[in-house]
Amino acid sequence: MAKMKLYYSPSSPYARKVRIVAMETRLDKKIEMVNVALTPVAPNADVDKHNPVGKIPALSVKGIDLFDSPVICEYLDNQHKGRRLFPRKGRDRWVALRLQAMADGLLDAALLARYEGFLRPEEKRWPDWSKGQMKKIDGVLDALEAEIRTLKGKPTIGTISVICALGYLDFRFTSHDWRGKRPKLAKWFAAAAKTPSVKATVPPPN
Amino acid sequence: MAKMKLYYSPSSPYARKVRIVAMETRLDKKIEMVNVALTPVAPNADVDKHNPVGKIPALSVKGIDLFDSPVICEYLDNQHKGRRLFPRKGRDRWVALRLQAMADGLLDAALLARYEGFLRPEEKRWPDWSKGQMKKIDGVLDALEAEIRTLKGKPTIGTISVICALGYLDFRFTSHDWRGKRPKLAKWFAAAAKTPSVKATVPPPN
Repeated sequence: MAKMKLYYSPSSPYARKVRIVAMETRLDKKIEMVNVALTPVAPNADVDKHNPVGKIPALSVKGIDLFDSPVICEYLDNQHKGRRLFPRKGRDRWVALRLQAMADGLLDAALLARYEGFLRPEEKRWPDWSKGQMKKIDGVLDALEAEIRTLKGKPTIGTISVICALGYLDFRFTSHDWRGKRPKLAKWFAAAAKTPSVKATVPPPN
Repeated sequence: MAKMKLYYSPSSPYARKVRIVAMETRLDKKIEMVNVALTPVAPNADVDKHNPVGKIPALSVKGIDLFDSPVICEYLDNQHKGRRLFPRKGRDRWVALRLQAMADGLLDAALLARYEGFLRPEEKRWPDWSKGQMKKIDGVLDALEAEIRTLKGKPTIGTISVICALGYLDFRFTSHDWRGKRPKLAKWFAAAAKTPSVKATVPPPN
């Protein structure tokens, strides 16, 4: 396999999903990492060349550029011989993909809240928007607490996505106490955080 | 198979993907359609019960609620015996999933631009934000024009997603002439728009 190139940032939670999957599938040595910085109002020309949506992560493989994170993760999961992180079929697959969608949905809301509160000029911020996004974040957290059994067992793309989502809250929403009313989720995350691939990809301090 | 329930809106381009897939896989008769209205600042309690991210489409199947549109579409594609819209493996699969990610990426940007320009109070709008989202839209359109051959051939989840993305531009961005500099894409879309499932799901006039 030709060397792959991953456009990422150490603080991107979506790129963290890919980096964890790369380590879990032992493909990390075959990936050249390209560290880039961008926001929706300050794009990166190099990233734009590989992903017209202008977002990271983007994976450049021989002859094709892949995005977004679910596509890259599934692609990597098809390039190794170990246990699959994307269950191939049946209910396990839908449970894992649904969990990924929940975690990515939390992240989409968290990023929008972050852009609203930090990127946008102060006088143009709209509290209702931030409130709406925070409601989505809390909705997902409550659902995860209620169905904690879904998270048990060996890692899947679903549990990896949840780890990256919770890790992002700890990184960028330190004042949002998500653990208080969700002891089961907090306990699960504390255990999951000890995994080497999770520890190796913790976002750097600001 | 138990009756499925789809939470959708006639104007949602993501729900349109699911409705086209349902018709193409002849599963539409087995789906009860629940028409709902919501925005990021005015959620819908019924939708929240089935999708904690608070978005449509959401598909309620026996014992599990599925979202977002890529997950629902792949699920439906696994419930029929006809030709697959999600190629099972190999390069065809990555081409189709990448195309879906491009089209959904265009839509994510278009929805954010729409919320910025119509939902947000006028004095809180940020032109740089809208400009950044429009750049993503144009970036995807240019990429599709440049790689028009990717769109040729039988429908896949990739081409269906592109149809919904272009259809949304015609619905909500009438003043954005996306066809002018992209004659190949315009021609492709004109032909694709004649498909019965595409015609049956055109968003209603405002």
